[in-house]
Amino acid sequence: MVKQYFMPTRVILGEDSVKNNPSVFSEMGKKALIVTGRSSAKKNGSLDDVTEVLSKNGQEWSVFDRVMANPSVECVYEGASFARSEKVDFVIAIGGGSPMDAAKAINLLACQDIPRDRLFSGNYGAEILPMIFVPTTAGTGSEVTPYSILTDHGEETKISIASPILFPKVAFLDAKYMDNLPRDITVNTAIDALSHAVEGMLSVRANPMTDAIASESIRMISSCFDALKKFQLTRNDRGKLLYASTLAGMVIANTGTTAVHSMGYSLTYYKDIDHGRANGLLLAEFLKFIERHRPDKVEQILACMGMKKTDEFKDLFDELLGEKERLTLDEINMYTEKAMPKKNIRNSIAVPGKEDVLNIYKASLG
Amino acid sequence: MVKQYFMPTRVILGEDSVKNNPSVFSEMGKKALIVTGRSSAKKNGSLDDVTEVLSKNGQEWSVFDRVMANPSVECVYEGASFARSEKVDFVIAIGGGSPMDAAKAINLLACQDIPRDRLFSGNYGAEILPMIFVPTTAGTGSEVTPYSILTDHGEETKISIASPILFPKVAFLDAKYMDNLPRDITVNTAIDALSHAVEGMLSVRANPMTDAIASESIRMISSCFDALKKFQLTRNDRGKLLYASTLAGMVIANTGTTAVHSMGYSLTYYKDIDHGRANGLLLAEFLKFIERHRPDKVEQILACMGMKKTDEFKDLFDELLGEKERLTLDEINMYTEKAMPKKNIRNSIAVPGKEDVLNIYKASLG
Repeated sequence: MVKQYFMPTRVILGEDSVKNNPSVFSEMGKKALIVTGRSSAKKNGSLDDVTEVLSKNGQEWSVFDRVMANPSVECVYEGASFARSEKVDFVIAIGGGSPMDAAKAINLLACQDIPRDRLFSGNYGAEILPMIFVPTTAGTGSEVTPYSILTDHGEETKISIASPILFPKVAFLDAKYMDNLPRDITVNTAIDALSHAVEGMLSVRANPMTDAIASESIRMISSCFDALKKFQLTRNDRGKLLYASTLAGMVIANTGTTAVHSMGYSLTYYKDIDHGRANGLLLAEFLKFIERHRPDKVEQILACMGMKKTDEFKDLFDELLGEKERLTLDEINMYTEKAMPKKNIRNSIAVPGKEDVLNIYKASLG
Repeated sequence: MVKQYFMPTRVILGEDSVKNNPSVFSEMGKKALIVTGRSSAKKNGSLDDVTEVLSKNGQEWSVFDRVMANPSVECVYEGASFARSEKVDFVIAIGGGSPMDAAKAINLLACQDIPRDRLFSGNYGAEILPMIFVPTTAGTGSEVTPYSILTDHGEETKISIASPILFPKVAFLDAKYMDNLPRDITVNTAIDALSHAVEGMLSVRANPMTDAIASESIRMISSCFDALKKFQLTRNDRGKLLYASTLAGMVIANTGTTAVHSMGYSLTYYKDIDHGRANGLLLAEFLKFIERHRPDKVEQILACMGMKKTDEFKDLFDELLGEKERLTLDEINMYTEKAMPKKNIRNSIAVPGKEDVLNIYKASLG
């Protein structure tokens, strides 16, 4: 297994960074496909900023705004067909994890003929259009990862496409697009980012470079917990959460995620629990499981949060998550069966067996 | 000014990472130019590791081992002429900052016809051979920067070539090559790395991404100060210093350096003081200068070192540096004149005027 740090995406950051860097867009080609969700990019000003730049540059664009939360395989094939018909030169993704992840798959499928049964094979050609990503939530880190997570209704789960060709060329980070993000999205995405940094440190592929970046990400997010609890976030706090989520993305781009993600997918698929929240519901018990095998690593993570015990971590998450969803024993058994074959479950420094997964579900949501 | 984080080099790390990744070499082409110094790469095993891999891969190579400390413009033109005559497909640099920086310039000059009077113009074409870098000291960070620092005997100073085409494709980090590094090189290179991280945080181009990485670099180096003072370093300490120096390289790749580097060049050129030591001799007084304008930033840096006051920083450096060189007033005046026109002097969040530069020299070395 190669331990490495590779992150070829150029990250440009700061207020109005989109509008201040028109040449980044003009270099990409004549016509853009803008992939976004149904409404948020229109409300938070990000779509306007992007189209203003394209317009001033004399560039054309088409908008594919039919990406739903947890985008499906069907959705990305539809987007790819649209991209082909519009003959675009590059792709711009604007939004949270759903539009960003969808944009990567749409791009791949627009450039390469990949039948559905080979979509998750990992074997792709090199053809891809250059991509510019503008995240408008601070969680997924998709702007700096080679992953596209899709919902596969055939398999009743989420599943990922991973390839170095899916790294965006450029990511713009501007916290102003997050000024009016509601509480639940703000908290859930912050938890998602924290989960990435924590899982990255618990990955078998973790290394001193990714650990360094993950540690800082955890510190930055932790400095916002009080503001998150009260939901009184300054622009500065929003910035910290955004930069921390990108740092966490740089981590998982190299380490992958772990059992928390494998186990969370069923919570999202069957219970419609937001992805970040799903991770958050499982994280404390996963940390306790790891602690029994690698207390040193858990101690390191807790130290970045200013904590000494996993119980403090659990208390914090109980407060952030509020009343928790509950699962029946049947559901827990079924979700355990779904989680066990996932690749990322074998990606942590201590691999949970079936009994362990069952117990983490039970202790978290039983 | 664009605030950004861009670092396209793939960093592969860990013991025997060169030997364990032969395909990284075979993908680069048929014949390599190995650029290295006169002896260290032969002694520390790094050259053997590389040639063993090339040999097993059935690849050819030529060695240019005439790179001296602080490589001159003449040296890189000579290397470029050698590279052209050897018709190589890629470049491997093995060694400390001198061979690594020389390799970038040799590569550039082998691929592009650039007369000497335009060498530092910053205007280059896109032609460049792919590069693999194997650092054998933990200081410069050149393995992840787009810079090549050369000595220009015409101008009697060091001067840099900077271009995104100079980012190596791959860097291998293996601390075993540093097992037998002598005390002075170990300390000086650690100071160089720390100086990069600190100057990066004090740059006008610093941003939350580079600050995050710089903070971790400073923390990692600081955790080795006791071992450095006693010169009792474990392989683990060596690893920390190596990873921290690469992290610091990622920082200055985006922020550039500041007045410390501009001022240090004359110490190296005229007094033959090692580059890292030259930075170290000036750093505490530069920090005190910045503190008067931006105490917040200095506080942040000191906090990463577990310190509260710049005097603690000065005490530490006094201990690490031992007896200091002394400059005459004439020398200080002349070095101030040489430093003032340098680009990086205007790169810090508080720009020192001529009087300030004079005072920093005086307080450090007067």
